[in-house]
Amino acid sequence: MNFRLVFKLTGKTLLVEAGALLLPLLVCLFYRENPLPFLLSIAMTGAVGLALSLIRSNDHFFPREGFFAVALIWLLMSAFGALPFFFSGFFPSYVDCFFESVSGFTTTGASVLTAVEPLPRGILFWRSFMHWMGGMGVLIFTLAFLPKVGGRTQVLVQAEATGPVSSKLVPKTAMSSRILYCIYIVFTAAETIALRIAGMPWFDAITTTFATVCTGGLSVRNLSIAAYNSPACEIIITVFMLLCSLNFALFFLVLTGRVRQALGSDELKFFLLAVVLAVVIVFGNILPMYDTAGHAMRDAWFQVASIVSTTGFATTDFALWPVLPQLILLLLMFLGGCAGSTAGGIKASRILLMLRCAHRSLRRLIHPRSVKVVKLDGKPVDEDTLNTVFVFFLCFMGVLGLACLVVCLDGFSLTTSFTATLACLSNTGPGLESVGPMGNFSAFSALSKWVLSAAMLIGRLEIFPILILLLPSTWRKD
Amino acid sequence: MNFRLVFKLTGKTLLVEAGALLLPLLVCLFYRENPLPFLLSIAMTGAVGLALSLIRSNDHFFPREGFFAVALIWLLMSAFGALPFFFSGFFPSYVDCFFESVSGFTTTGASVLTAVEPLPRGILFWRSFMHWMGGMGVLIFTLAFLPKVGGRTQVLVQAEATGPVSSKLVPKTAMSSRILYCIYIVFTAAETIALRIAGMPWFDAITTTFATVCTGGLSVRNLSIAAYNSPACEIIITVFMLLCSLNFALFFLVLTGRVRQALGSDELKFFLLAVVLAVVIVFGNILPMYDTAGHAMRDAWFQVASIVSTTGFATTDFALWPVLPQLILLLLMFLGGCAGSTAGGIKASRILLMLRCAHRSLRRLIHPRSVKVVKLDGKPVDEDTLNTVFVFFLCFMGVLGLACLVVCLDGFSLTTSFTATLACLSNTGPGLESVGPMGNFSAFSALSKWVLSAAMLIGRLEIFPILILLLPSTWRKD
Repeated sequence: MNFRLVFKLTGKTLLVEAGALLLPLLVCLFYRENPLPFLLSIAMTGAVGLALSLIRSNDHFFPREGFFAVALIWLLMSAFGALPFFFSGFFPSYVDCFFESVSGFTTTGASVLTAVEPLPRGILFWRSFMHWMGGMGVLIFTLAFLPKVGGRTQVLVQAEATGPVSSKLVPKTAMSSRILYCIYIVFTAAETIALRIAGMPWFDAITTTFATVCTGGLSVRNLSIAAYNSPACEIIITVFMLLCSLNFALFFLVLTGRVRQALGSDELKFFLLAVVLAVVIVFGNILPMYDTAGHAMRDAWFQVASIVSTTGFATTDFALWPVLPQLILLLLMFLGGCAGSTAGGIKASRILLMLRCAHRSLRRLIHPRSVKVVKLDGKPVDEDTLNTVFVFFLCFMGVLGLACLVVCLDGFSLTTSFTATLACLSNTGPGLESVGPMGNFSAFSALSKWVLSAAMLIGRLEIFPILILLLPSTWRKD
Repeated sequence: MNFRLVFKLTGKTLLVEAGALLLPLLVCLFYRENPLPFLLSIAMTGAVGLALSLIRSNDHFFPREGFFAVALIWLLMSAFGALPFFFSGFFPSYVDCFFESVSGFTTTGASVLTAVEPLPRGILFWRSFMHWMGGMGVLIFTLAFLPKVGGRTQVLVQAEATGPVSSKLVPKTAMSSRILYCIYIVFTAAETIALRIAGMPWFDAITTTFATVCTGGLSVRNLSIAAYNSPACEIIITVFMLLCSLNFALFFLVLTGRVRQALGSDELKFFLLAVVLAVVIVFGNILPMYDTAGHAMRDAWFQVASIVSTTGFATTDFALWPVLPQLILLLLMFLGGCAGSTAGGIKASRILLMLRCAHRSLRRLIHPRSVKVVKLDGKPVDEDTLNTVFVFFLCFMGVLGLACLVVCLDGFSLTTSFTATLACLSNTGPGLESVGPMGNFSAFSALSKWVLSAAMLIGRLEIFPILILLLPSTWRKD
């Protein structure tokens, strides 16, 4: 393992984080709040970042260095990102700050705060801005600004790429990350303006947008989006949550005139089918609770979009809904968005590939010489990829079960413990019962908060990079 | 589809069932109870069986006929097996009788009865005897007695064989089914005598044994095994539950002197490790609830053995335990016993194979040219088998989710709905909360009871045979 290079890379990323902290510092100064938490954080993050980035190293960079770097970068970004929270004095302990920070960077949106409105604007802005940075992956973000790391950057992106289909948009990695980044910025600008026009104050419009386009879900209001009581805002947010849970490569196709190819995507059709089905079932089940069908329909769309995109915003307390729509939402957490989006979960393309594989297996039992190849978008998918997809599914379930065992030690109900773990692993945020959309994660023990933080990181990094670090052979000398 | 042959086969099996009903009739006469329910059932089952078995057919028997026959036989066996319950007048409706009958034949052990002790002895005996017949698979049972069906019997067994590893004991199917059958009878005799010596009355010893060796779990006492308040009986039952969740082929190896080969089984080691780990965690968590460590240890062993073997007997109400040991029990329901046993669930060998596959996938990411083959007991497992194992896992989870959605319509808590579905699909029996070991399934709607009955059948037939029947291509003319 080339530790020196990994530390050097991490240091450079910390320098970027120190730079990023200047933005909430400005917000803080603008609102005439105490800048000390940010000044201290910038100093510490910058100092450690500088020290690490000065390490001299060769450029031997292999897959294991990539996985280790990704894991370490996300870990340290979160650890240092927690500092402003810690110095602000609004959090009871460092583990709470770390949980909130991980929740921010991994775009989960789970919170340990019982109320967010008393917090200074600078801190709230940082919380949302972490979301936005985490959204497209701190690495792609970093790659777009930092000079390329000796031509080996592909490994980094590969380690973090979401979903089994990582068809590159254009040959060069830095180029494709810049395109994704541009789409992301356009979405951010568009939603901010739309929300402002719909009547949201600038600060809320910007922070809410940050939390939407990254499918994060941390809000600056105690009641989340319900606080605005504005159908127009809800519809705008619903649209952007759904847009940001689609494969960003599709937008690139649309931009370059290949609309037909974009609309023909198997994953897109499967995902939209699942969303519409979920909305129909949820709507049918919650209708009796509402005065008007329009309101029920709006809430059904909003909550389905919020959960399937793994954002986690709420316009209503779905923990009070009947059991069936609650289960639908839990199943959507497993599904998550499309590959190549900012959403979490297992991802639609993985589920679709597994279903096609299951169909093939069943057909083979009857017609042994029938269909041999599983296809996606008309192209055959090789068996190794299918195998990896199934292994991903197994690991997702396995991590879910193991993390839940630890969380169960706190003695909360099975539903609370399980949905808290699932909501963290799938990067959704809210679960049911105590951790419902109007609840929070404050009551958990420190151990559970560490484990749930790990679950968020494992989920965000698509499980494998972290599990690989647990294999002894990864650390053995070649 | 060769419907005539399938119906003919089903008819023959119903004749066997009519014959099997003579045994509870004798019990009924012995205890001077009303024999009418049994006389009516024997007449109806025999008449339909005779009519169907007289159908003339050719012997074109392909896999799809096998799958259809297996499904239809289990369905009709359950439908006719429900008749004595129905005629007894102790069940509120036919769907309750059907549920109880499916639960019996599939060795699930879930019950709709709030109390079993008021029932006539004949009915109780039939309930337990269904378990015993279902245990080794009605088909293997049938095969051992009926003349071979034109040499095509292998397909039938294949459709029903439990687990991915169906290494035949001896070349001829009828021969191996006879060996399994003998082991089964020896276990039955041994446990009955042991329980009798430990102080259980003959009737209870026999019916409890029927429910143990098939890993079923229907008891003739309201309080299940807790009613006997006998540590000796509990230990005997624990041992037999564990024995019967091992691969029966291992006993054949031991009988033929290949003890070392039997003990070297990867699945055995993995299964025992899981059991011991589960006992340790459960014991540690329930210890504070008990006066003596011995009692806690006995209950921990009993409940872990009961759930992992998917029997479902209870010596204590584990629905009142802390959350962590409850989750352990739920995870054990997923695991189930070993392949080639009478247990349900996903099966230890499948989980083991998937874990090894996951390990290979992770290693490959770091060392692309490392381990290529996944092995079990030193023999390489081909990729098709691995793929099928993963597809099985996916289908198990999928059926669980879908069935749970329907059960959720009844409005019970998520934990009740989910554990009820899992307990049925894994053929365990009891779940948590309302369907806990001291609860029952009576409160569910008729729709849920049908769906849960289907889940029991799907789980017992290892999912594929039923799913295949849902594919249009299965029914298309070649």
